[in-house]
Amino acid sequence: MSVVPTRFAGAFSGAFSVNSHAARLPSGRHVCYTETMKHLIDCAMGREKCDLVIKNVKVFNVFTGNIQCGCVGVADGKIVGVGNYEGKEEYDGGGKYLLPSFLDAHIHVESSLLSPEAFAALAVAQGTGTIVADPHEIVNVCGIAGAEYIKEAFSRLSIEGVKPLDVLLQLPSCVPATPFETSGAAIGGRETEEELGRELFHGLGEMMNFPGVINCDADVLKKLGAAKARGKIVDGHAPALSGSQLDAYLCGGIATDHECLTAAEFTEKAEKGMYVQIRVGSSTNSVEEGVKAVTEMNFRRFLVCSDDKHAEDLRKGHVNGAVARLVQAGLPAKFAIPMSTLNVAECYHVRGVGAIAPDYYADMVLVNDLENFGAAAVWKRGVLVAEGGKVRFDASKRYLPAAVRDTVHVKDISPKDFEIEVKGGRVRAIEMPPQSLYTAERIVAVKAGKLDVRGTDLVKLAVVERHFATGRIGLGLVKGYGLRGGAIGITVAHDSHNLIVMGDDDGAMARVVSLLKEAGGGMALVSKTGEEVFPLDIAGLMSSAPAEEVVSKTAALRAAAYRMGVKSGYDPFMSLAFLALPVIPLLKLTDRGLFDLGKGKFVPLEPEENI
Amino acid sequence: MSVVPTRFAGAFSGAFSVNSHAARLPSGRHVCYTETMKHLIDCAMGREKCDLVIKNVKVFNVFTGNIQCGCVGVADGKIVGVGNYEGKEEYDGGGKYLLPSFLDAHIHVESSLLSPEAFAALAVAQGTGTIVADPHEIVNVCGIAGAEYIKEAFSRLSIEGVKPLDVLLQLPSCVPATPFETSGAAIGGRETEEELGRELFHGLGEMMNFPGVINCDADVLKKLGAAKARGKIVDGHAPALSGSQLDAYLCGGIATDHECLTAAEFTEKAEKGMYVQIRVGSSTNSVEEGVKAVTEMNFRRFLVCSDDKHAEDLRKGHVNGAVARLVQAGLPAKFAIPMSTLNVAECYHVRGVGAIAPDYYADMVLVNDLENFGAAAVWKRGVLVAEGGKVRFDASKRYLPAAVRDTVHVKDISPKDFEIEVKGGRVRAIEMPPQSLYTAERIVAVKAGKLDVRGTDLVKLAVVERHFATGRIGLGLVKGYGLRGGAIGITVAHDSHNLIVMGDDDGAMARVVSLLKEAGGGMALVSKTGEEVFPLDIAGLMSSAPAEEVVSKTAALRAAAYRMGVKSGYDPFMSLAFLALPVIPLLKLTDRGLFDLGKGKFVPLEPEENI
Repeated sequence: MSVVPTRFAGAFSGAFSVNSHAARLPSGRHVCYTETMKHLIDCAMGREKCDLVIKNVKVFNVFTGNIQCGCVGVADGKIVGVGNYEGKEEYDGGGKYLLPSFLDAHIHVESSLLSPEAFAALAVAQGTGTIVADPHEIVNVCGIAGAEYIKEAFSRLSIEGVKPLDVLLQLPSCVPATPFETSGAAIGGRETEEELGRELFHGLGEMMNFPGVINCDADVLKKLGAAKARGKIVDGHAPALSGSQLDAYLCGGIATDHECLTAAEFTEKAEKGMYVQIRVGSSTNSVEEGVKAVTEMNFRRFLVCSDDKHAEDLRKGHVNGAVARLVQAGLPAKFAIPMSTLNVAECYHVRGVGAIAPDYYADMVLVNDLENFGAAAVWKRGVLVAEGGKVRFDASKRYLPAAVRDTVHVKDISPKDFEIEVKGGRVRAIEMPPQSLYTAERIVAVKAGKLDVRGTDLVKLAVVERHFATGRIGLGLVKGYGLRGGAIGITVAHDSHNLIVMGDDDGAMARVVSLLKEAGGGMALVSKTGEEVFPLDIAGLMSSAPAEEVVSKTAALRAAAYRMGVKSGYDPFMSLAFLALPVIPLLKLTDRGLFDLGKGKFVPLEPEENI
Repeated sequence: MSVVPTRFAGAFSGAFSVNSHAARLPSGRHVCYTETMKHLIDCAMGREKCDLVIKNVKVFNVFTGNIQCGCVGVADGKIVGVGNYEGKEEYDGGGKYLLPSFLDAHIHVESSLLSPEAFAALAVAQGTGTIVADPHEIVNVCGIAGAEYIKEAFSRLSIEGVKPLDVLLQLPSCVPATPFETSGAAIGGRETEEELGRELFHGLGEMMNFPGVINCDADVLKKLGAAKARGKIVDGHAPALSGSQLDAYLCGGIATDHECLTAAEFTEKAEKGMYVQIRVGSSTNSVEEGVKAVTEMNFRRFLVCSDDKHAEDLRKGHVNGAVARLVQAGLPAKFAIPMSTLNVAECYHVRGVGAIAPDYYADMVLVNDLENFGAAAVWKRGVLVAEGGKVRFDASKRYLPAAVRDTVHVKDISPKDFEIEVKGGRVRAIEMPPQSLYTAERIVAVKAGKLDVRGTDLVKLAVVERHFATGRIGLGLVKGYGLRGGAIGITVAHDSHNLIVMGDDDGAMARVVSLLKEAGGGMALVSKTGEEVFPLDIAGLMSSAPAEEVVSKTAALRAAAYRMGVKSGYDPFMSLAFLALPVIPLLKLTDRGLFDLGKGKFVPLEPEENI
């Protein structure tokens, strides 16, 4: 408890004796902690030049919300401080704002349809330094090998010995997502216990099976218990859960939620100790309601996440775009910035990230303003990784292990496989309101016998099991989608990602399946005027093509589908991909048949009372 | 990313199949994580009765600062939630306030002069659930064995299979505190590397040698590097350090500071990312300045600590008393309570502590009001450990390993050892202003020859090396202390804790030394009317007696010393204990002689110009 005023400091400082010519990495960084410390301290004291000084910037302080004009010193990939420094290298920030690099609290990289390399190029250019990635989609197809692929593909990116993007991988907790479909892999409680013991996984991914939690499903608790035993964080997914059911869910040790829909839901979850994530994704966002719920007392428990972000949106903005949305919705930047930096680091227990302060990693982004947060320059560990929206590392190579290629295993299909024989005169059809993932059941009158949907507002829908070539096909009907004169299909079909195809012509449907089989997965369209296919060659979910090509080719396919009559309220392929998701009400189709979530069981195509 | 509205939850919840008659500890708690989870979830869902329900309380929410009236359910030592529950056991809170148990962010238990058992009894009765303890004093005497003793003594306390007080031990970083004195142990960089690898230590204790940090002392950096390598938190101690020197200090990876003296210092350290601790100790506090610095943006980085707390003060209040001081100083309770609960847990990375929310440990305190925070009842892991200021566990036993007993090793001393032969006519004397630990040098005219201080305002001061019986004695003089007609001495002498004795009579001084030697350490007084000694039998620093006895006996000794003329501005024994601390300006005495911190060296008793 003793006190030495600074002016007496000399008396017992001890010898200045660390060897200053110590071992360094090729990057010039020191090998051992004490050598890095010494270099940092010497730079802070002005005894050595900083490796880099970013001059003439407005530094945002996440601890106080204040802005300080000056220079930031960097040494050994860490921040020395904010002050006046000399640097071996100097960068003029042109009076712009310097923030800590952004962290995305929750994202499924696969939803961008991009390879990890192409994703990183877009995200880093926008100032993202770290993502918490849940490889839920690819693990449902490839198992753990899918997660290993994601991690390794990101890890191989490098510039001056530094990884431009840090990726914290969450082990998907719901593989398969439901027992009502065939997925490519299954990860139970025992596998989860083993996998969480590996360094590969930072925590356990979003626990979507909250009914399993609150009803104490043994396998679900085994997974949660494994995370608890290892002190690993568990992400939540509990839409509209509240009161004692929410308490019960939290008793499972779940730390976060990104499914809040209303301000009241954000408030309740935050007050019960959850870190709540405002989602700014391509399909859904909770900006307005989230902003309403933020207060000075609770804002440290709010985070920002993407969840799902399409390539075309990523090009416009990643977390920086999300923060801009929050600010435009009226949230002060002094709250929005910590929510996308320090708060995420605190929630996920990432040390030394999320602030511009001494001894923090030099992960920083220079933004033009605090309204649009356009990224002018981005540093990772003190290395300039992007400038003017262009990354400075090579993201053109692709790591493509066998495990994620040739994942589409389908038995030979003939038009006959899509024939539907109707006994009675009425069938169940799925109707999906535009701009919604929810569906309704419609009973439609049809002629008995072999069903021909041409000239009606029905199309045939088929989910073809594509992981083990079992030949299993679920058949159904969709009303009011608008597609005419052919078929479209895709190997992205949430969450088990079988092959889903829709059309009014059995031949075209069969052709779509074989096109997708040949392409090893993708999006395909067959019309009277021709056929088009865009390969999603990585697990049938993502493309190894450059981002520009993914954006243009998918746009072209969408346009072609609209020309075939698909109504504008739908995204022809993405809306299709959700018709196989049995956890969203009400009537859905899996490879095992028509599933009614309300009844909690499969139902026949023809209403019982017919027979 | 899929969504299931609650009303469809039944569909895929999975089987309810965890064996509900699972293994339990004698305390009735479950053995494995999943069993605890199941019990908690079942209680939350109302399928099982809670183990305990605390009814009719106003629950303070640390996340929002709000207060919610209701009941708190407890199961397996954890909190089920705030709501309506049935309990096997129920406790009526009588409409009082229920808070999370308090955490003390930094305390030296030894300064209470109490055994860990007696300390725990006082702290727990006041609502303290966890302390971050830095055994700096006892480790300077006994080495690592001293830390092991502190940990083990606390660990042996138990009630219904629960430890009433959690203790996070910080490995002292400055043993010895300076090279200018003889301590009982030395812990260098290599030992620090080894010890931090042990579970015994949560982190590295306050780094007082900040000159060593900013001047890159090799051994200091080795210690800091060891903590960094293991991801262990390092406490700071950097009085008045600011600007680039503070940045340099932080580049050593230091996370906290409890030495802030001004609001500006609190603000700068918080904005540079430190967790700053408002100290409310027995000798010093920074309440007013600390409160000035707290804002809605930065309060999550503010903590509360005691540092040093005497037994008599502990009886009046511990952290709860500190929080009361903050509130009385104008800090809203919605800030003061998190600063002494959740913030401390976050800073020190203690999971599941510091809040009343689902899945948090049931460490709670029922307080009468939010002004004085008097503790009416205290629970640890759901067990009632104190009520009405009395603990319910047995704190009367003492764990006293050989390592902490008989630690006073002094060569036989005779009055002759205190004789001072003066050549010239002038000597250096230490003068300490009342209510201060700082001292000044006074040059005093004396008769040449054998020095006799009787009838002057000088007393002789001696620091007798007491760890290795080297017989080394440092001799000096103190001006204006007031002591007459005998001697007083103590084996607490910061920070190396040699035996320090003061008097105007060589015989009495020698007698004090032998009394303390016989007692195995303590406080002793020899006057014309008699002699008194109070043993500090634990390492010469702490007493194994009950708190009441420690308070009354030390008070009696103080009174006796005042009767001998010690001026009221001094605490006769504690002020004495600081005259040996060479890191506080200006002139101090160690077993090696008079040390001038200004000159940074030892100085002779007689000014050079004399000789």
